[in-house]
Formats: sequence, structure tokens, C-alpha cells
Amino acid sequence: MLKEIGYVEVGQPFEGFLLIKSATKGVASNGKPFLTLILQDSSGEIEAKLWEATEEDEKTFTQEQIVKVAGDISQFRGKPQLRIQQIRPSQPTDGVRLQDFLAKAPVEVNQLEERLTEAIFEMENPNIQRIVRYFIKKYEKELFLFPAAVKNHHEYVSGLAHHICSMLNIARDLKHQYDDINQDLLYAGIILHDLGKITELSGPAAPNYTTEGKLLGHISIMAEEIGKAAEELSIEGEEVLLLKHMILSHHSKGEWGSPKPPLIREAEVLHLIDLIDAKMNMMNRALQKTKPGEFTERIFALDNRSFYRPVFEKKD
Amino acid sequence: MLKEIGYVEVGQPFEGFLLIKSATKGVASNGKPFLTLILQDSSGEIEAKLWEATEEDEKTFTQEQIVKVAGDISQFRGKPQLRIQQIRPSQPTDGVRLQDFLAKAPVEVNQLEERLTEAIFEMENPNIQRIVRYFIKKYEKELFLFPAAVKNHHEYVSGLAHHICSMLNIARDLKHQYDDINQDLLYAGIILHDLGKITELSGPAAPNYTTEGKLLGHISIMAEEIGKAAEELSIEGEEVLLLKHMILSHHSKGEWGSPKPPLIREAEVLHLIDLIDAKMNMMNRALQKTKPGEFTERIFALDNRSFYRPVFEKKD
Amino acid sequence: MLKEIGYVEVGQPFEGFLLIKSATKGVASNGKPFLTLILQDSSGEIEAKLWEATEEDEKTFTQEQIVKVAGDISQFRGKPQLRIQQIRPSQPTDGVRLQDFLAKAPVEVNQLEERLTEAIFEMENPNIQRIVRYFIKKYEKELFLFPAAVKNHHEYVSGLAHHICSMLNIARDLKHQYDDINQDLLYAGIILHDLGKITELSGPAAPNYTTEGKLLGHISIMAEEIGKAAEELSIEGEEVLLLKHMILSHHSKGEWGSPKPPLIREAEVLHLIDLIDAKMNMMNRALQKTKPGEFTERIFALDNRSFYRPVFEKKD
Amino acid sequence: MLKEIGYVEVGQPFEGFLLIKSATKGVASNGKPFLTLILQDSSGEIEAKLWEATEEDEKTFTQEQIVKVAGDISQFRGKPQLRIQQIRPSQPTDGVRLQDFLAKAPVEVNQLEERLTEAIFEMENPNIQRIVRYFIKKYEKELFLFPAAVKNHHEYVSGLAHHICSMLNIARDLKHQYDDINQDLLYAGIILHDLGKITELSGPAAPNYTTEGKLLGHISIMAEEIGKAAEELSIEGEEVLLLKHMILSHHSKGEWGSPKPPLIREAEVLHLIDLIDAKMNMMNRALQKTKPGEFTERIFALDNRSFYRPVFEKKD
Amino acid sequence: MLKEIGYVEVGQPFEGFLLIKSATKGVASNGKPFLTLILQDSSGEIEAKLWEATEEDEKTFTQEQIVKVAGDISQFRGKPQLRIQQIRPSQPTDGVRLQDFLAKAPVEVNQLEERLTEAIFEMENPNIQRIVRYFIKKYEKELFLFPAAVKNHHEYVSGLAHHICSMLNIARDLKHQYDDINQDLLYAGIILHDLGKITELSGPAAPNYTTEGKLLGHISIMAEEIGKAAEELSIEGEEVLLLKHMILSHHSKGEWGSPKPPLIREAEVLHLIDLIDAKMNMMNRALQKTKPGEFTERIFALDNRSFYRPVFEKKD
Amino acid sequence: MLKEIGYVEVGQPFEGFLLIKSATKGVASNGKPFLTLILQDSSGEIEAKLWEATEEDEKTFTQEQIVKVAGDISQFRGKPQLRIQQIRPSQPTDGVRLQDFLAKAPVEVNQLEERLTEAIFEMENPNIQRIVRYFIKKYEKELFLFPAAVKNHHEYVSGLAHHICSMLNIARDLKHQYDDINQDLLYAGIILHDLGKITELSGPAAPNYTTEGKLLGHISIMAEEIGKAAEELSIEGEEVLLLKHMILSHHSKGEWGSPKPPLIREAEVLHLIDLIDAKMNMMNRALQKTKPGEFTERIFALDNRSFYRPVFEKKD
Repeated sequence: MLKEIGYVEVGQPFEGFLLIKSATKGVASNGKPFLTLILQDSSGEIEAKLWEATEEDEKTFTQEQIVKVAGDISQFRGKPQLRIQQIRPSQPTDGVRLQDFLAKAPVEVNQLEERLTEAIFEMENPNIQRIVRYFIKKYEKELFLFPAAVKNHHEYVSGLAHHICSMLNIARDLKHQYDDINQDLLYAGIILHDLGKITELSGPAAPNYTTEGKLLGHISIMAEEIGKAAEELSIEGEEVLLLKHMILSHHSKGEWGSPKPPLIREAEVLHLIDLIDAKMNMMNRALQKTKPGEFTERIFALDNRSFYRPVFEKKD
Repeated sequence: MLKEIGYVEVGQPFEGFLLIKSATKGVASNGKPFLTLILQDSSGEIEAKLWEATEEDEKTFTQEQIVKVAGDISQFRGKPQLRIQQIRPSQPTDGVRLQDFLAKAPVEVNQLEERLTEAIFEMENPNIQRIVRYFIKKYEKELFLFPAAVKNHHEYVSGLAHHICSMLNIARDLKHQYDDINQDLLYAGIILHDLGKITELSGPAAPNYTTEGKLLGHISIMAEEIGKAAEELSIEGEEVLLLKHMILSHHSKGEWGSPKPPLIREAEVLHLIDLIDAKMNMMNRALQKTKPGEFTERIFALDNRSFYRPVFEKKD
Repeated sequence: MLKEIGYVEVGQPFEGFLLIKSATKGVASNGKPFLTLILQDSSGEIEAKLWEATEEDEKTFTQEQIVKVAGDISQFRGKPQLRIQQIRPSQPTDGVRLQDFLAKAPVEVNQLEERLTEAIFEMENPNIQRIVRYFIKKYEKELFLFPAAVKNHHEYVSGLAHHICSMLNIARDLKHQYDDINQDLLYAGIILHDLGKITELSGPAAPNYTTEGKLLGHISIMAEEIGKAAEELSIEGEEVLLLKHMILSHHSKGEWGSPKPPLIREAEVLHLIDLIDAKMNMMNRALQKTKPGEFTERIFALDNRSFYRPVFEKKD
Repeated sequence: MLKEIGYVEVGQPFEGFLLIKSATKGVASNGKPFLTLILQDSSGEIEAKLWEATEEDEKTFTQEQIVKVAGDISQFRGKPQLRIQQIRPSQPTDGVRLQDFLAKAPVEVNQLEERLTEAIFEMENPNIQRIVRYFIKKYEKELFLFPAAVKNHHEYVSGLAHHICSMLNIARDLKHQYDDINQDLLYAGIILHDLGKITELSGPAAPNYTTEGKLLGHISIMAEEIGKAAEELSIEGEEVLLLKHMILSHHSKGEWGSPKPPLIREAEVLHLIDLIDAKMNMMNRALQKTKPGEFTERIFALDNRSFYRPVFEKKD
Repeated sequence: MLKEIGYVEVGQPFEGFLLIKSATKGVASNGKPFLTLILQDSSGEIEAKLWEATEEDEKTFTQEQIVKVAGDISQFRGKPQLRIQQIRPSQPTDGVRLQDFLAKAPVEVNQLEERLTEAIFEMENPNIQRIVRYFIKKYEKELFLFPAAVKNHHEYVSGLAHHICSMLNIARDLKHQYDDINQDLLYAGIILHDLGKITELSGPAAPNYTTEGKLLGHISIMAEEIGKAAEELSIEGEEVLLLKHMILSHHSKGEWGSPKPPLIREAEVLHLIDLIDAKMNMMNRALQKTKPGEFTERIFALDNRSFYRPVFEKKD
Repeated sequence: MLKEIGYVEVGQPFEGFLLIKSATKGVASNGKPFLTLILQDSSGEIEAKLWEATEEDEKTFTQEQIVKVAGDISQFRGKPQLRIQQIRPSQPTDGVRLQDFLAKAPVEVNQLEERLTEAIFEMENPNIQRIVRYFIKKYEKELFLFPAAVKNHHEYVSGLAHHICSMLNIARDLKHQYDDINQDLLYAGIILHDLGKITELSGPAAPNYTTEGKLLGHISIMAEEIGKAAEELSIEGEEVLLLKHMILSHHSKGEWGSPKPPLIREAEVLHLIDLIDAKMNMMNRALQKTKPGEFTERIFALDNRSFYRPVFEKKD
């Protein structure tokens, strides 16, 4: 595993351990079965073909299995493809673990925990603070494991907490600039806004949408959970209404999934900060893979744009 | 009160009791104050000017006051206007009551109650039936008082229940035609779909949007209430999820206020029946005021169309 | 032909008679020619590959030929594919007929005829009734053969008549609910609205758009035909104008092909009933192929949605 | 009538004959009735107020009456208004005629007739030529009287013929440039494309939409008329289909009223020429009323733009 | 001038100095001329009517004249209106100055200058720094006088510099959070992005669009100016291209006036910061005029939304 | 080279010289490398597969190499494909030149030069004429080499000049019809409108977008160049402003790349003529490849329409 799979180049050989993200059977034009595998490590993923696959192969090389593989990187329909020469399942003696093959946030979990604790500590309104603590406790495990999305941005282990903490930092700075902002509301909105994804998605590794996620969506799920939490905590008053509103409106427009547009200042700010952090995450990761003087791949969630990396900067 | 205010014609005199729907002060070009009153009875409303209004007048002629008024119907900017010659507040001896001046559903409340009871009685799924009963009980008073909307369709006393009962009838017929429809789900969706309006709107007479209504909307309010009801009734299972989904999706599209599009058959049918009954209500009332061979006023909620009333039909 | 082609599963063998819907020649990566066949019976269709096809094969296996075929069902790009092991054209002694391989309406033709006759019999306006009779006579053959569309809904033999009869039933029920509806106009609009498809499409089996269909469209074609019919029958008056308007407006919006939006009540109702029956047809058929607890394939004409089939219902 | 009404300036007096385009009764804030008159001559129109109007005035000053009027031009809500000091109906001895007060095309009718004759004479295809001749004959009177639209462009007497002839000239020039164009088709499309307006509109002076116009529209009306004409003339063949298609598609898009987009070259060219001539007509007339260095009024039908008239050109 | 005009309430008297923003003549229904004045001080503006205006009044009360006025605040079409009882032009002895009646930024000019100097000082890239200095020098006077827009946000004296400095602060904070951002590019983009408005608008008081502004727009004006500046300074290279791109793309979309969408990271960030500062400016000012528990007026540039001011916060 | 590659038919053999437009390596399902070549001559292009390609082949058959090739035309995914049997690079003795394999305008360069000279000669305004001459001189070489676009219309050698000259002819004719048009402005706008493409695109053969082209676009590039040219020529005045405006607005709408819509008559006309010539170019070329009675391929840039070629015309 000299080179990670996200950084190989066409024409090079590859040898190392990879995780099978998905496995699909096909039949080649010569009538023989083959397997199409998506293989990944924490740096990225690649499509691979295992030609003339036996029934044994089909049973062995399945989703979430770690394999040791050797082959060459060729090009297929403009994308790199790994042509497998040797492949075997990993064995206990190999000493490889599932979590080593998943992408994760570039910040340590304990740092994320600290940042979150600090933000809650700063809250002055007891109602808001209690509701937020309730959810931190309820989801203490998932919060630091789940991604913030299935794809596009922060789609890695701890992505949800990473996204929240970046947003808290921006919120703190904007509060300095625009003093009228209610910091408690904004911090609470940021911490809670995407917790519905814990119900909407199936889990931290290779997440899918649950049936509840598809039929209700994380926005409605979380708005309702706030109502229930307030009831359990016997909290009444405008704060509950406003927190629900912030969750409902944080996608800003009906066609983007929000049943109400932001109608309080902090809801509008929440939406803007969410936008910034998601966009920065997408742009930065795409640009880091791009050489100066070249354009990134098209980024679907950024209106399918390719971004240019300038030459004039000092850099690698 | 020989003729109701919805049926007067320009050039005619008018004398009778009317309810003040709103009163606004203005200053005329000669510098003297006047009052612009919107006056209504159960047949419609008219704008009226009370020129050279005294301070006494201002205090007397306020919203929700019933008045006895005499004057002429003239035309102003293409719409009829009542020019007031005499006006006085109603007195106990006049024997007039607020409810007599509000438009109401063309069906009696007890008939609506019966239809609703019948529909619930037909339900076979006990979970669905219990949830529906819970809400009928909770809102037994408001359900037969509230309008179905602030304007456009069924915007009269008992409008909500009238709308529900019409929809139940259509649902029963469609079930005959398309047997795969789950009648329990569809009936429940129809009965519950707009109950959030009881929280969203301020009341049955001259309704406005409440703050909760503006910040959450009747769709999110009701989806959450179903969750709470199920919890109180200790009901778990797919039925709760599906009922919430039907509420969330019954406006069909994000830009029309639904955070999810219909993703089960009965949700799609609920949306279609809602559409039919709202449109029929608007068209029928506009056409009843239109002479054969003429076009109705433009109906904003029907893409601003004017509808033609054919000549060839038997006249009524 | 133990199992119909619409119900086979990947990994199973298949043997039976099928109709060739289309045949296309290709060249494999080994340089040898092959045939891609779309094979169908009344339950559905499947793609099949005939590798190393001879010139003889090319001439034999052409569109509308019935074949006896044996092979295995594999998966290709996520869709089932039939890998042909044996294939031969059908022979007179096989006793198979073209019509047995086409999908058809789930209602018998004579029932459709009866329903139509009944609706026309109920008409009271002689002008409307005569025009409708004229077209029933003119298209008595095609009406019960043509599909209602090339794809999406009622795209099977007798689909057009099946669609009309379902719509008539809904119209009858709505007339009970909303008595102001003019039943003659609505029934006539339903019966005539899609008859232009008989000119727009090439025929009942594997229909394509004709040049006239592409350049004029079924809406304009039928509006003009009504004009001509009225002239032949010496009918003058508003009914002709209104029937033409109903045809022109039944797609509701300019961007959906209607040069005028509905401007009479019955035209609006016609559009709504058309919408309901088309949507129910699509949803019901997709859900019948879906197991409880799963989602249907995406349905393009329903905004590309997948519909969920609930678990809690009684299974069938 | 020293100055025409389209050219008066605020602050100036006015005296002369004008035609009453519309008359509406109102009641002033002092309770006295007044008349709002729209007065016009061939150069433009102006709003006028007749304060303290008697019942006699109401009966005298009605639509299509010519009046002699004296007053001042003031400004009201940013637009000029004529404050009437003296007004009387015209008398036979005044020697004024209705047609003198209507705007008309800047080209003589006989020139328009000649141009049309020339274009038809050049046609080589006998089917197309016969159909065009049929309509020229059928509408020989209206064709040279009707406007091309109710407002926006060519909305004056002979506007329809003026629009057709300008378009024929552009078509002749484009044929030189792009020889593949079929001139017969294009000329015929131009001559016929708006003839449906003769049925859609009520007449040459102060035109309104007829019921037939509202329910069918000039596009569908004319497409059907071509079908009937061909039948009467016993013409069959592709030319009829193509001419109908050109009529149906000349508004280019569904949302602009065309049930089909242009699908033959000449239909696309017809649409483009129509666009050019309509736009030039609107721009030129607006700019002629604008001083160099200033912007025109906003032109609604040109996306509400104001156009700048350059200073550097030779002034006229 | 006890109370500023932006804070008066309907029913109260007003007396004090105000600036005439615009003056328009009208004619009342009694035939007498009147003046509609828009009067302003630094807190806001109000419409006022001067009834029975003499010719002398017309000449005296013109745009940019300061007047002393006494009257009452009434309501007209839902907006406050000042009914003038006494009015006279200001005199030298009144000691009032034009600039005292214009709204200005809530930050002192020298603070804005300092912030700008600091940002330029931090720049490391000499090319970028020189170009920015060039423009600061070129527009040293206008930069601290001009508003950032004609209406909506920062539409006050020094608004442009105020907007720039707020944006610089946010940029500094985002650079801390997302280290990959090129600070020089982003700072330069912020400082230059709206300088084209100095050419697009007529001046700091009551600004209009210039002809150049209307025909080219501030975006194209400024992109060209950067090109010229680079040429004068003999600067070549990627920095010039990138700065032009940032100007061209800072409105983000074609339909919002940008001929190119952001295609470098710093251009995207520039757009987002611009959005935040404009929105915060609009929301904060509207909310400051709103009582807790109420909604602001509709803000057109924020999708016509009304924002709610919560009750639970500490009041100010 | 009996038949050009744009006119071959499936099933036929092909032998002749072709230019390699692009070459991509792939790996077949049997594990052996192959080359996908796009081969072109001046009539069109075709995809070709070179199976079992050696390393030698990879180095030999690269972009812009001319090759002699023999093989058969087969069909692949509905498009013709050339199956290579023999291939070799061209040799000096073959006497073939690069330019012979590029599509070029159907008009000779010297004719285009003459037309351009004539138009400039007719100009009366010396400022406009000098600016146009400046650019003709500056780009005298590229102007007659570059295409007008990368794809869709006039995408061949001299396409830019061909497009300009066609547009000049239409402009001349429109000037006859609408005399108010300022011919100097319109001619200048036509000649200059797309010259920015010379910077935006990489060159006349197989053009790509340059980085400058991607970040600024030809519209902004050219508007700036006009400013610089005017400065060099010491020309001031409205003409410069208007020419810049015409460049900026010639795509008509923000979403089509114009930062300003046309706000002078000649800018609107420029846009319309551009539209006509681009559309005619696309339609004519597609129809020339289509048999009478058939439809063209879908043309993406014409809203994905297929155009019908009538049967009734004289065949060519």
C-alpha cells in the first residue's frame, strides 16, 4: 500500500489492501461471468473488474469485505479502473481494520467534542441550553460517527460533528461583526439543524436513506423531535417555536426542502453559514486534488462548475 | 335588507344591517378625515366611505361592530362602493347576531358530523382509527367552526368540515374505481390533512395567521401532532409514519409548501382530491354569480383565469 | 412458457415463445456481429443478445417475428438480460398468434363498448350526442384497439377505450358530488379528448408517431375534426365551440401542449379526471410489481418518483 | 386642433376634436359624480376628467362619440391628463369622421394590396397558391382594416396587412441569403399566420377578444380554417399539413400559445420574421417619441425595457 | 425637531427641518394644483401633500431644498403621510446643512479609512497590492462618500466604504477558518468589487443611474478599469486575469448580472460575503424599527419576506 | 477516398486518408489494450476502434496525425463506427495536408474579405469606422481562420468571417426595410461582436477554451478591447459607449451570458440577426444530410428539435 487509491495514476501498478464498497455480477460478451467491485480506502475509491469470476469468488468478494489486491491502473470511459491480477480476502494476521478504510474528518473527535462543549457552555438562555444538552446526550454516540451527508460535502466519519464545529466558529465571528445576532439561538440552530440525519441515514459507513428518511426527511424528523424534547423537559415558550422554525427553514426554499423560508434573523444566518461551510468543504477538497494552472473535476452540487487553481500562489 | 350586499347593483340604493370587517382612517384632499369601511353580510362584502368622520365616529365604527346603514351603490375603480348616507351601530333591540353576518357552509353542521362519523366507523385498521378519533375529540369544537382557508376556497364558517366531507365522498367513489387504494389511510389523510389550520389561523371569524402559523405552517404543525398523539396512545408502527407522510406531502411540491412529494399512492390521491374539491368550490361560486354568456371575475388561485358560463344550458 | 417474461428472475432459465419487438445489429469486441433483440410477451419485455449472429440470423430474426427461445436470465447494467442459447422462428404448427404477445386492457372489449353506449345514451343535448355518435361510428374499429399513449399509461391494446371508460365512471361520481357540472359536455369531452391519437399514432402494436402526429399533434387534429363533423352534421352553436375548447385545453397548460387553458368548468374537470386516471394507472401497475416494504422503480412521468408499498396492509 | 393629442406637453392648453374611446362614471370625494374619459385622435390618447358630470353628460359622452373639447394638460400620477373646461358633441356641420381619429398604418392600403398580389403571383406551387388566394378572397375586406393585435404592435387600422407586407419583404431578402428556404411555404405562412385574428377580435376600432377568440385562440381557429379550405378546394397532400403546422407553431413555444414548436425550416423562419417585425414596430414608435439622449417609456412587451436614443446621430 | 421623521407615529404632530428629496405637481379633484413632496432627514423619509399650491410654491419647494415644516402625521393607503400646515424654505440663519439630512454609515469615515489601509498593508503579493492602491488613490474622495446601492442595502453616505470594511472583517475571519483561501485575492476582490458604482451612479445624494451605468453596468465598467490600471502600471500576469474574473463573477449568476459564475475559490467566497453583509444590513435595520413580537415590513430584496422579532430576548 | 466519411453508410467498406482528431487508450474485456480514435475529414467524423493496439501503435496514432485507413462501417449504439482492418501514418509522398481535412466555410476567403471591406467603406461615422478598421488590422490573420464557435454553428475554418458576412447582408436588407436603423452602429456591432472569440478559443483547428476564455468570456474580453482601442485612437464620445453596449448585450439575456440586455435599437437588431444566422446555419446543414420525408437528428442547440424535410419540394 505504497500509494493510496485516491492518488494512483493511469499506467501504474497497484498492490495493497482495499475495502469492497459494492460488488455486482455481470456477464461478459464471451458469456463468462465477472464481478464489478468498487474498492476504497480512506483516500478515495476505484472501480475494478474481476474477469471470469467463479461462484466461489461471488461468495467471497462481497460488500464490507477487506481484500488484498494487485493489478494495473488502466482507463475506462475517461475514468481510472483497476484491472485485478491477484485478489484474496484479508486474514486476521493481516492486522487491518474496517475503520482504517473509511474517510474521516481531518480533525480529531476529542477536539470536536471540546468545541461543542464550549459552545453549549457559553449559552445564557436556560431553555435553549437544556434542549441542546438533551440532544447531545441522546445522540452522543452517533453525533461523532455520522457523516453530514451521503455525498457532496462532509461525507465521511465524524462529518456531522466536523460540519457543526466549523459552523460554530463562523457563527462566533459573525456575532462579533453583527452584534444584534442572538448567539444562543444561532448556536443551538447550528448544533441541531442536521441531527435528523441520524434517523434519515442508515449509519456511518456507506450510508443509505432509511424508509423514514425517505418519507419524512431529516428536517421534519428533527422539528418534531424538538417538540417532544421540550415536552419531556417541560419547556414552554417562544424558544421552542423558534428552534423548530430554524430547523424547518434552514434549507431556505421550498424547492430545496424547507417548508418555510427563514423568517427570523438567526434562521437566515444559519442558512448562510451552512451554505458557506458546505461550499468550502467541496471546493477545498476538489482543489487539493488539482494542480496549479488546471481546473477541478466538475462539482455537481456547485452547479456543475469546475474551479481553477491559480498558478501564481506559493505552493507545492 | 331586501337585497344582500353580494347581489346589489351599481346605481341602486341599499339599506340594512352589515358587519364591519375592517375600518381604516384616511384624510381627504380637502383635509378632512374619513373612514374606509369594509362591510359584509353572509353573501359578500363591499367597500364604503364615511366622509367627514368625527372622532366619535372613529371610536364607534370599529372592526366586528354591526351597523345599520343606508346609502347608494356607486362604482369606484371598477368595483362597487357604498356611499353612506346614514349609519348607526346596532342595538340589542335590533335582534341581530354576529354569526348571521358570516358566510357559512351550504350544508348543516349535523350532516357534516354524521358523514365524518360514518367514515371513521368504516375504518378497519385500529391504529388509524384510534388516531383519527383522538383528533376528532381534541378539535370537536373548532373542526365545525373553522374555515378551510383564509381566502380562495371554503373560506367560511364550517368550511374545514365541509371540505373534509366533500373529499370523503370523492374518496369513497375512487375506491370503487381503483380497488387497490387503502381506504383507511386515505380517509384518515383527508380528515387530518388540514387540522393544523386550527393552530395556524386565529379563529373562525376574519381569520389571520398566528405567529406559530407563520413560522411553522399547518403542515409541520399537524405532522408533529400526529407523532405526539401516537405516543400518547402508545401506537407504534408504519401507520404513524404513513399518516405523517401524507400530511407532509399533501401540497405535492416543495414550492407549494410540502417538504416531501407524495411517495405512497394514498398520499398522491389525497393531493388530487384536495385539488379537485378546492377548484370546484372556487369555480362553482364564481360561476353562480355570473350570467350565462359571460365570464367570471379573474380567480387568482386558478392562475388568474376567468371562466365562461355557457348559454346553451337550461338557465336557473 | 411456464413463467411470463415480465416475472422472470435473474439466475433462472427461460424457455418459451416471445415476439421480437425490435432487432439491431452490433459488432462485438472480438469483431464478430451480434443481434440485440427486444423480446416481449403480454407481461413485459426483456433485452436479449444473440452472439455471433449469421447473415441468415439477421434476415430471420426481425421485428414482429414470433420466436421460440431458450436461455438464462443474467443481469446487465442493473437490468435483466436474456442470454440466448437456442432460438428458432415460430411455425404454423406452434399455434401462436401475434395478439397473444401484446399487453391488453384488464377489461374485456365488450364491457368497454357497453359502458360507452350507456354514457352516450344518457346524454340529453342532441347536438352533443350526435357529434359523439359520429366519432364512435367513424373510429369504431380503432377506438377499441389503440393504446392511450406510446408509453407511461394505458399503453396497451384497448388502452384508449379503457382510459375513456374509467374516466366516465369518475365523471359520473363527480356529477353526483357537484351538481352544477354539465354531464353532457363532460362525457363528450372525455370520449373525444384523445381520439386524435388514432391519427397521431401509427397503430395498436408498437406504435410510433406519424408525421402528421409530430407536426400537428392529437390536440389540434381532434379540434379540427370536431369542426368538420359539426359541418357535416349541420350542427351550429355554442356546443361545437365548447367541445373544441375542451379538446384544446385538456392538457391544461401551454408547456404541456394545450394552446388554451381550461376556461369552462367542464374543461377543468376533464383535465383533472384525465390526470387522476393516468396517475392511478401508472402507480397501480408499478406497485403491483413491488413487494411490501419496498419502493417501485422510478416512474419518469410521475416526476421520477419511486413509490413505497406499505407493509401493514393485507398482502395479496 | 393645432397640436395632436399624442404630442401635447404638460402645462399647455388644448382645443380640438377627439374621439371618446371609453367613458366611466365615478364619484368624487365631495360626493359628486364625474366622468373619466379616454380621448383619442390618430396620434395617441389621453385621460380626461369631466368633474360634476350631469345625467345629461353621462348620456351624451359615450364610447365612439366625437367631441370638441377645450382644457389644460396637467400631470396625474406621472402621466398627462386633460382637465376639461369645455366639451360638446360634434355636429354634422363640423365635418369630422370616425376614421380620422383612428391610428392607421403609415403605408397606403393600395400599396399593401399590390405587395400582397405580387407575393402571391410569385408562388410556383399551385396548391399553396390556391389556398392563399382562397383566404385573400374570403377576408378581402377585413384584411386591410384589422389591426395585427389589440395592443403592443401594429395595433392600428390596416395593421394586419402592414405587418404581413413588412414580413414578406424580409422573407424575400432572407430567401436571397439562404437559398434552401422554400419561398412558397414561407410567403404563404406569412400571409396566413394571423388571419385567425379576424375571428379572434371584434373589429378594427377599439378591438376586444370575442368569446370564440378567448376559448379557441387565433392559432387554432386558423389551423382549422386551412383544413376546411383545402377540403373545399379538394386539395390534398403535404402542403396542407405543412401550412397548418406553420400556423400552429408560429408562436414558437407552448407557453407562448403554440401547441407545437416549429419543426420545419420555414416555420422557424416565419417565427423569427414575426418577432423582428413586431419588435421593430414597437421600438421605432417608442423611439420616435423620445428625444436624443433620453430613454423611451418602458415597453412591456419587450421585457419592460426602456430604450436609449443616441445623441450622436443626425437629428430629425 | 424633537423626533426624527423615521420614527414618527400616525396621529402625532411634527415640526422641524427636512430636506426635499423630490417634488411633483398634481391637480386635485377640485381642480386646484397641489405638490407631493418626499421629505427626508437622516433617519428616513415621508410623503407630504401641500394642498392648493401657488406658482410661487412650485418654484420654492424643489428638490434638494431644505424646509422648515409643521403638520400632522396621518395614514394614506397604509403608509404614514405628513399633512403640511406650515412650510417655509430654510434660511442661512437656521444653520442647517445638506449633509445633516442624509443618512450616513454608523461608523466614522476615519475608522473606515484605517480599516482599509490595514487590509492593504497586509497584502503580500505586490501586483495585487499595487492595483488596489491605484484605485484607492483614484477614487479616494468618492469611495468614502458614495452609497453601496441606490436602495435596499448600505444606501447611505459612506455606504460603499462601510460595506467594504464589514466584508473585510468577515474575510479575515473566514481566512482563519479555511486556511487555503488566498487572502490577497479575496481582500482585493472585496475592495474593488463595487467601485464601478462610482461611475454607475450619479453621486452620493439621491443617486440615479448614469447612462453609462445603464448601458454597461458597474460590473463591466470595473472589469475594464482593472485592465487599464494594470496596463498603466505595467503589470502582467495571472493576478490581473483573476481580479477581473472576481469582479465579473461576484453577482454569481447570469440572471443576477454576472457574465461568468465564480470559477475560483476566492470569487465564490467574495460572492458569499457580499450576500451576508447585504442581507445583515437589510435585516438589522428593519428589525431595529420593529417591536418585539411583531414582524418587519416586507423586504423586497429578501424575497419579500417579513421577519419576526422575538419577544424572549432582552429588550433594548 | 471515393466517399467522404460524413456520407458513408453502415455495411459499406471504407478506404482513404483521415485526420486523427483524438486518440484514447482502453482495455478490452479480454484484457488487451485498444485505441479509440476519432477520425475526420472535411465532411464529418467517425469513431474507430483499433483492437489489440501495441505500444508502438499508441505512439504512432496520436492527435493531428493523418492516417491511411481501410475497414468496414458497422453500427455501435445507434451510431456508425469504423472497424479498422489496416492503418498506417501518412507519408510525405502521400501529398496530403492538414487543412484538407478540416471543414471550412462554403465561401472563399477573398469573397469574405471583399464583403467586409465594402461594409467598412460604407460607414459614414469616422469614429466607428476607425475603431472597426483598428480591429480588422489587429486580427487580420485570425479573423479569416477562426470558427465562430466550438460547436453548433459555423464551427469550421473561416466560420467567424462567414458568420459576420452573412449577418452584414441581412443587416443591409433590414436597413432598407426599417430606415431608422443606424447602419454604422449595426455594421460595426456585427463585425466586432464575436472577435473576443479569437482570445477565448485556442485556435482554428480542434479549438478549446483558453483559461482567459473560461474566466472572462469573449463578451467581456471584447468590451474591454474596444475601450482600449478607443483610448489608443484617442476617440471619445457616445459611439464608444454604444459599441461596448452592443458587445455586452448581444446574447440578449443574463442567463445566456450578457450582463446587460439590449437597450438600443441596433443592439436588439444585432441580437436578432445573430440568432437568425446561427439557426439557419444549423438547420440547413442538418437538413442537407436528411432525405425528403424524414426528420433530422436532434439538434441540441435548437431545443433538441428534429426538423422535417418535406417531400413535395423539387428534390436535389
